[in-house]
Amino acid sequence: MSVTTPQGFRATGVTAGLKASGRPDVALVVNDGPRFDAAAVFTSNRVEAAPVTWSRHVVADGRVDAVFLNSGGANACTGHQGFQDTHRTAELVAEALGSGAGDIAICSTGLIGELLPMDKIADGVDLAVATLTDEGGPAAATAIMTTDTVPKVAQVPRDGWSVGGMAKGAGMLAPALATMLVVVTTDADVAGLDLDGVLRAATATTFDRIDSDGCMSTNDTVLLMASGAAGVTPSPDELTAAVTEVCASLARQLIADAEGAHHDIALEVRTAATEADALEVARAVARNNLFKCAVFGNDPNWGRVLAAVGTTRAAFDPHLLDVTMNGIEVCRAGGVGADRSLVDLTGREVHVVIDLHAGDASATVWTNDLTHDYVHENSAYST
Amino acid sequence: MSVTTPQGFRATGVTAGLKASGRPDVALVVNDGPRFDAAAVFTSNRVEAAPVTWSRHVVADGRVDAVFLNSGGANACTGHQGFQDTHRTAELVAEALGSGAGDIAICSTGLIGELLPMDKIADGVDLAVATLTDEGGPAAATAIMTTDTVPKVAQVPRDGWSVGGMAKGAGMLAPALATMLVVVTTDADVAGLDLDGVLRAATATTFDRIDSDGCMSTNDTVLLMASGAAGVTPSPDELTAAVTEVCASLARQLIADAEGAHHDIALEVRTAATEADALEVARAVARNNLFKCAVFGNDPNWGRVLAAVGTTRAAFDPHLLDVTMNGIEVCRAGGVGADRSLVDLTGREVHVVIDLHAGDASATVWTNDLTHDYVHENSAYST
Repeated sequence: MSVTTPQGFRATGVTAGLKASGRPDVALVVNDGPRFDAAAVFTSNRVEAAPVTWSRHVVADGRVDAVFLNSGGANACTGHQGFQDTHRTAELVAEALGSGAGDIAICSTGLIGELLPMDKIADGVDLAVATLTDEGGPAAATAIMTTDTVPKVAQVPRDGWSVGGMAKGAGMLAPALATMLVVVTTDADVAGLDLDGVLRAATATTFDRIDSDGCMSTNDTVLLMASGAAGVTPSPDELTAAVTEVCASLARQLIADAEGAHHDIALEVRTAATEADALEVARAVARNNLFKCAVFGNDPNWGRVLAAVGTTRAAFDPHLLDVTMNGIEVCRAGGVGADRSLVDLTGREVHVVIDLHAGDASATVWTNDLTHDYVHENSAYST
Repeated sequence: MSVTTPQGFRATGVTAGLKASGRPDVALVVNDGPRFDAAAVFTSNRVEAAPVTWSRHVVADGRVDAVFLNSGGANACTGHQGFQDTHRTAELVAEALGSGAGDIAICSTGLIGELLPMDKIADGVDLAVATLTDEGGPAAATAIMTTDTVPKVAQVPRDGWSVGGMAKGAGMLAPALATMLVVVTTDADVAGLDLDGVLRAATATTFDRIDSDGCMSTNDTVLLMASGAAGVTPSPDELTAAVTEVCASLARQLIADAEGAHHDIALEVRTAATEADALEVARAVARNNLFKCAVFGNDPNWGRVLAAVGTTRAAFDPHLLDVTMNGIEVCRAGGVGADRSLVDLTGREVHVVIDLHAGDASATVWTNDLTHDYVHENSAYST
């Protein structure tokens, strides 16, 4: 049920003709209140798309009435016209909903560097508003797909309240907070709660720890909207736990559907001096093309893991490093460990444990392998 | 003629049986003096191979009598036994040449995480010493190849003296100074010159500005040896220019033979506030897998260039960025420029110019596209 699992939300997904394929390409999620609390995290890419610039301003006052999302065009690197188009879209949605444009968030995804066809966007707004229902969550999740092969939805029911969510993203996934388009809803009454803090805590250990291809998008947005319709106010910890659970589920689904991937790889760094060290090491390995190609070839090439670890500033002694791949400790004390031929990498999931022996902190980053299919999809995407 | 173009050097390349293919796998370059000056730069990877650790010590006193190089095994991540093997190799070479082990540099390349077969290395030392000639440069260049498809050699004749060089490297090329195995020789008399400064100046603008796949090796070494046999002492500027010319030629050859590459891409960043900014931007683009896939697909996807630029800390205003691909300014002022269909990317060389409009500094980094063949080579390398 996605974003319409919580009470107080309606959603829809429609076809506005932005995609050449004729598939659904416009989604709308509306908060019917009684409260309209919102928080968001955005890409840290300094080249940010017009809808990101716009939505930063919208969410600044903590209120969002609705979010309009389109696939089939990112509206990034589109100059002043692009920003005017986003502004105009918000005005159209606001007029149709009887709201104010300043409370309408906008998200766009698709090819960078092309203006959106505003006549089709306008048609999409009308069609979307006309088809809003409290069961529209799955349709919305489908309409935001680009190279995704499946829609990503999650819902976490609690006692008298719930959290729901949807996500899109199959490439350009890299940690900078908010690495895709994500809408999370809850009917909890969050009056007096630090919703921004809740969202940042949830994304820091979920979306911020997946790194499919090291490429940071211009459009990434994670938006959390709270309707208060359940009339229940959970504790901050309860709310954070539920939002984190939804984000974790969506993040895992994104990795599982990453462009061209054949393996989902969990890089667990242990015994690090600090969590920051553990993260730096995990990300360095996650971005090492040679390691990612080796996993594609089902090759437990642990030397490439060590070569990646060696590029970091983390505290470690090269002669103490251990690497375990799917349960086999192939590298022990920086040298040859168990027979690499014992490692079975034929399954979809690969678990790599890197022990730094420098402390007791740890972190896990999820990534994918680098495959022929990834190269194919990304060499042919815009042409 | 490679490293034996300058007077005072003998070299050889022989087959010691380290490679399953039966191709040459051991090279030796000997300086016959009268001088034995040397300088070197090494990988900055903290996980460094045993021969790197060894050769750092050897070159510390500025004297190197010979360098022994093997392909077919990197002797990296091989623990104390690996270091003892490198030490023993230097002793064997020194005994055969009547030199001291402390003046014998060692370089190794090949798979990480396996010990070298020392019986074959010992045979290789004997065979190499027995076949040294002053025309052995090309044979040496061939013997250090791994996935290289062609040997890389260069020579720059000057008035009465010369510089020669050889290089290997086809993957794991990334800037951290010294991104491959390179031996550069000169017969200039460098008494009183800052040979280390000459080498660092030359590599800073050549090997340090190629980045094939962002992966930094554990074994990278660039060694410069000077025999003084020509009896001519050039000025520091003259020597730096000649060494730079050899390094530039070898660096360009490495990019042209990079694993699986279909395009050589020059990323020229202009109007940067500082050269460091220009380099940071060029490297960010050089490491962006999505951009590199697009070039493979002959797709002038400039949005991916901007998305990569946006991840840097360089000084720029996103609304002022221009991007020109093979002469067509596809992005102007951060937005859509000339028709992207005008860009012809079918040739081997691609020239991307990025204008930051933040100053008057510039830098160029060379990289390659990301192809099916790269994935194939690197998913099947060790198995």
